Amino acid sequence: MTVADKAAATPSPSTPKKSGCLNPLRRLFSSSKSSSATPRTMIGVAAPTAASNGTASKLAAAHAASGKVLTVDTINPHVRTAEYAVRGELAIRSEALRKKLQTDPDSLPFSQVISCNIGNPQQLGQPPITFLRQVTALLEYPALLDPANREVVKNLFPEDAIARAEKLHKAIPALGAYSHSMGIPAIRESVAKFIEKRDGFPANPEHIFLTAGASPGVQTVLQTIIANDHVGILIPIPQYPLYTAAIALNNGRAVPYYLNETGAWTLRSAEVRRAVREAREQGTDVRALCVINPGNPTGNVLSKSDMEAIVSLCYEEKLVLLADEVYQTNVYYPADQPWHSFKHVLRSMPAEVADSVELISFHSISKGMIGECGRRGGYYECVNLDAGVLAQLYKLASISLCPNVQGQLAVELMVNPPQPGDKSYDLYHGEMTGLFESLQRRAQKLGAALATLEGVECNRADGAMYLFPQITLSRAAVAAAEEAGKAPDAFYCLALLDATGVCVIPGSGFLQNPGTWHFRTTFLPPENQLDDFIERIGAFHQQFMDKYRD
Amino acid sequence: MTVADKAAATPSPSTPKKSGCLNPLRRLFSSSKSSSATPRTMIGVAAPTAASNGTASKLAAAHAASGKVLTVDTINPHVRTAEYAVRGELAIRSEALRKKLQTDPDSLPFSQVISCNIGNPQQLGQPPITFLRQVTALLEYPALLDPANREVVKNLFPEDAIARAEKLHKAIPALGAYSHSMGIPAIRESVAKFIEKRDGFPANPEHIFLTAGASPGVQTVLQTIIANDHVGILIPIPQYPLYTAAIALNNGRAVPYYLNETGAWTLRSAEVRRAVREAREQGTDVRALCVINPGNPTGNVLSKSDMEAIVSLCYEEKLVLLADEVYQTNVYYPADQPWHSFKHVLRSMPAEVADSVELISFHSISKGMIGECGRRGGYYECVNLDAGVLAQLYKLASISLCPNVQGQLAVELMVNPPQPGDKSYDLYHGEMTGLFESLQRRAQKLGAALATLEGVECNRADGAMYLFPQITLSRAAVAAAEEAGKAPDAFYCLALLDATGVCVIPGSGFLQNPGTWHFRTTFLPPENQLDDFIERIGAFHQQFMDKYRD
Repeated sequence: MTVADKAAATPSPSTPKKSGCLNPLRRLFSSSKSSSATPRTMIGVAAPTAASNGTASKLAAAHAASGKVLTVDTINPHVRTAEYAVRGELAIRSEALRKKLQTDPDSLPFSQVISCNIGNPQQLGQPPITFLRQVTALLEYPALLDPANREVVKNLFPEDAIARAEKLHKAIPALGAYSHSMGIPAIRESVAKFIEKRDGFPANPEHIFLTAGASPGVQTVLQTIIANDHVGILIPIPQYPLYTAAIALNNGRAVPYYLNETGAWTLRSAEVRRAVREAREQGTDVRALCVINPGNPTGNVLSKSDMEAIVSLCYEEKLVLLADEVYQTNVYYPADQPWHSFKHVLRSMPAEVADSVELISFHSISKGMIGECGRRGGYYECVNLDAGVLAQLYKLASISLCPNVQGQLAVELMVNPPQPGDKSYDLYHGEMTGLFESLQRRAQKLGAALATLEGVECNRADGAMYLFPQITLSRAAVAAAEEAGKAPDAFYCLALLDATGVCVIPGSGFLQNPGTWHFRTTFLPPENQLDDFIERIGAFHQQFMDKYRD
Repeated sequence: MTVADKAAATPSPSTPKKSGCLNPLRRLFSSSKSSSATPRTMIGVAAPTAASNGTASKLAAAHAASGKVLTVDTINPHVRTAEYAVRGELAIRSEALRKKLQTDPDSLPFSQVISCNIGNPQQLGQPPITFLRQVTALLEYPALLDPANREVVKNLFPEDAIARAEKLHKAIPALGAYSHSMGIPAIRESVAKFIEKRDGFPANPEHIFLTAGASPGVQTVLQTIIANDHVGILIPIPQYPLYTAAIALNNGRAVPYYLNETGAWTLRSAEVRRAVREAREQGTDVRALCVINPGNPTGNVLSKSDMEAIVSLCYEEKLVLLADEVYQTNVYYPADQPWHSFKHVLRSMPAEVADSVELISFHSISKGMIGECGRRGGYYECVNLDAGVLAQLYKLASISLCPNVQGQLAVELMVNPPQPGDKSYDLYHGEMTGLFESLQRRAQKLGAALATLEGVECNRADGAMYLFPQITLSRAAVAAAEEAGKAPDAFYCLALLDATGVCVIPGSGFLQNPGTWHFRTTFLPPENQLDDFIERIGAFHQQFMDKYRD
């Protein structure tokens, strides 16, 4: 019997189950007037596809016809369903344009592609933090720490970078070895101290997992929480698409709650309660609430009182709080309401709440002013988690052996930077402040410029690295998009890319209120290019609006 | 309605399905006389646990009782079921002993813990390859490539390392940026050239995915292949436990085929055919065959004719061939039969086979003489894969953004080392040869020593980094193990660790022929400590055999 015969003889048990499962997102969006134009990007999770509506024999026929064991129709349907717009159609097209410019620089109406699809500061020219790279370079090549070379090395590296590298070399003698699966113990201790200092409450290094960026941490945690296809995870709309992707891969249910766009994208706990109630009424086992603060793509920064309401809600509704806090140092406004961690807010509440709500908080070296995206480093801290669950997370980490040590080192240097009085402090402080103030200016300038465009409304980014303007598109534009088989916002973003080389991501990749259209752009283009960037977008926008005027 | 009420009201659909599913490993091992002593480690995949045999209401009760949303009983049952012995009970105990020695050096009958549980050469003192670290250090801190510093830098780094770093710096100007999700294009081109030179057949950089070590590549590929809980993956017994872990996490079926221990752990295709036939008769959709060559934990190196038989089998039975080739440069014997890649063997066959069998081959920077485990780098090459499936793998990679750039750089330096005539060639060649010959001597010496022990048989390691001796244990030892609630081999390994500080892994973690007992040890202890190491193990072994003599 061949594989194909066998597949035909064995109906896949997951296929009929899938088509019968309730999905709140599908239900919510199914009555949207625009759903026909954007069936996949709008729904994001568990969208109906040919295969999931089909039968096992149909899969087997596709399998037999192609001659391949693996085809798009035979692979894991959850892999097929997952979407990740940040590196999706727009990003792939922008790569093709970049290649075209390399071989034929005059072939396009612009001379360079500007990738604003992803928060990737060093790609757009942001320099690395000097002290961080000095220490990592010293650790890479052990001869640089050899006392015999000290006189030469002192000409290239400041003494405190050398001292720090020596200290780390003692704690981590074999940089090339697999570390502890949760991360190097000395670095987890540094992270715990950083959290304690930040929050004013103790942190336990044994509850901290170092990761290769925040994304693998989120994926591991969601994989652990989603026990079956009835488990629901509350996600903000708009969201960062890692969440819908990871929920889809684990065959869970994304339960959307809507951020309040007209109120600067605030999170209202009443709206979360509505989402919990409705999902539970539909049989969804709602277990966790994802909050991104500062917001991605919204830029909103939560107030302490809103955070307290969210923690109370988690206590009352028995929800695990997943706090994506990777933009915690990218907070530009308001100066009088500083950013608070959920750990701080939780621990500040009455003991029955403080000691019971399960919280997992994610942080990363990729954001802030560090911006070490390619190095892949981060951590998550578990608060009030069951010891047995911590052991399971440890086991999961061990299956992948360990997070990369170079990323772990950068976590150490992020949480333990030069201090006043250290030789490198002034340079470090100047670099951090300079980058911060520049991000603040760019956020303000680009946001204000976008808000002046016809039919565009744009909330200020109080934090993070993104603006998420709403565009009101004409009926003619929506019709042209439908003609092209694209969501209206994707149609707009593709036209922008083709006309200007600017790559942004349509709001449908982040999900949005039905019938509204947005795009997400970073405000990371270098400051000296920002005027040109704004002009390019403005000129395109006007042409687009004129072309599709009703 | 609270979460607990909801969980009680909503039976988990995965629970009844799970308990009803056929599992070939469970079936195979259920009649083993020793299964009662080792229910979890022996079965490895989809072992029955309290939760998976229980009911949804039982889960909800546990949930309500602990007050936590997440408990071991409520999390993803596939996370709970997955086992990874290499960093399991023995490794965790060895860490505790190491900590104890730090605080109280005289508290144990040994002065140091020797971790032979994992192929982690630099942890046991193997030095890194100098050229690799020189280039990565230069790239870490851009000032080192500044022409203004050249005269000083030339005193620390050879000119070809500087030239290489400059070349890579041009190809990868922003080391701190997310790279292409499949890996930096220039490095994928280097990998393709390396494969072409190695195999004599073309390789396509667009079919090569850089990864953070081989493990995440294997996990991604298995996640993609396992479409539902009827999909079976053929794995060798003994296996590397990443495979059973990843299959369990994806709720697939591990379909065991047995390597021939009395024939130096050779892989017989007739045995694979038996496994395929029996699994398909039981309704398993057997889709892929995992082969580890050189073998882990067996050390076997396949002959070209055996590999041809395996490829033919994949063609006839329509199986995707997953070739774990991370030990491809750790081949010590025989000199007259060099290691061949499956890509080379496949492409050397008639066109109908060469152009149709789907092959995915994994490689890593962690093994060989490079041994850069902590850096996490590797790649997989896809051969004859459907273009749509490649696009899905690309999308999956993009959800995690990119493999860490420092690991990618080490892949570049592994596949593109100094060449004869380069300033660094002699040092590089000397380091590689010295490490290789030392590994070869250690493999031989430790293998021969283990084979002299009472009741121990040990095949020679022709490749890789491990020995997998079989121990014949007395009835008294088996009874003592049962008394202690341990598998007999785990009981032996725990006693070895407690007596000597030597950490090895019981064979039950790798799976083994029912009723046989083994352990896996690396042969990585430094050569100057090997006599002492052998003596420690020998003395313990004799005491253990005497203590439990029937």
